[in-house]
Amino acid sequence: MVFIRELEQRILKEGQILPGEVLKVGSFLNQQIDTKLLKNIGDEIARLYRDDNVTKVLTIESSGIAIAYAAALSMGIPVVFAKKHRTSNLSGNILTSKVFSYTHHETYDIAVSSDYITENDNVLIVDDFLANGNALTGLIEIVEKANAKLAGCAIAIEKGFQGGGDALRAKGIRVESLAIIDKMTDDSLEFRSQET
Amino acid sequence: MVFIRELEQRILKEGQILPGEVLKVGSFLNQQIDTKLLKNIGDEIARLYRDDNVTKVLTIESSGIAIAYAAALSMGIPVVFAKKHRTSNLSGNILTSKVFSYTHHETYDIAVSSDYITENDNVLIVDDFLANGNALTGLIEIVEKANAKLAGCAIAIEKGFQGGGDALRAKGIRVESLAIIDKMTDDSLEFRSQET
Repeated sequence: MVFIRELEQRILKEGQILPGEVLKVGSFLNQQIDTKLLKNIGDEIARLYRDDNVTKVLTIESSGIAIAYAAALSMGIPVVFAKKHRTSNLSGNILTSKVFSYTHHETYDIAVSSDYITENDNVLIVDDFLANGNALTGLIEIVEKANAKLAGCAIAIEKGFQGGGDALRAKGIRVESLAIIDKMTDDSLEFRSQET
Repeated sequence: MVFIRELEQRILKEGQILPGEVLKVGSFLNQQIDTKLLKNIGDEIARLYRDDNVTKVLTIESSGIAIAYAAALSMGIPVVFAKKHRTSNLSGNILTSKVFSYTHHETYDIAVSSDYITENDNVLIVDDFLANGNALTGLIEIVEKANAKLAGCAIAIEKGFQGGGDALRAKGIRVESLAIIDKMTDDSLEFRSQET
């Protein structure tokens, strides 16, 4: 598929592999965002879930916000982002979960106001990266606590070799990743071939 | 102007005034984002700066990311967001500044890779809220450290009564806020009338 090739080529051209199996895509998908590429990613996610009657996109701050907004805008629905800590701007009933971050070696709380994800929602979880799946698992727990329906997950880049995506798929959860890296060495990447 | 009226009406209808002069707009502009409204905000910011040859939009994580992306997409340029702490994904030369947050009563570092804001850039700083102006001042310092040009600032909601926006304007910095609240009591808001 044309668009997935575009994303893979961009990762090959600009991605930097750092120690600890870190793939840095800060020049186009993280600290700096190529807005046109991200719009294409959002449109592709909307296309993948076009028949699923999704009512809300859910993500987690902060790197997921732009991609989740792009997908939600393309789908014509609101986006909600889980905050990593309670703040003075979160009041009322909140839904919480815990996430362990390998990047920062710590467990943190994520929280969403129960006003924004309810039992009437069919939720699509969107994030930029999927590695071990801890962030997605925390967001899925929030969807469950809200008694909402889970349409599935959509990700820009999955590190397939870390297994988190396939573990979720094995549980019957639909996980769509636009680029899946199955092998990463110090100087090379191998993508999983996907039917589209 | 039609759009500004739309934003003001939305603030009056859904905004909640909390103790400590906090205006909560979580249902449409913060934790939950009305994607169509945010697209209109981005388009309006692009219109205001359409003759300024802006090359980069700069914001700060995490609540500024969606609005900054919406503006940058409409302008056809990249968006860069300052991170609140150094993380293992920020490497190489970085530009830093310090920001005091009244919301969280703490000073934090903000950081941008020097690869993403350079002396060739003409930068538009975008954020969702402007109160005392501390976040903008920190971002302006980063633009200065990069030897980049500052086109100006664009904000969705300015708490005019806290003075940060007018202090920046007094220094000759262009600050465009789509809605400026000049007075806020426990149960009422008063907007500044603006020429458009």
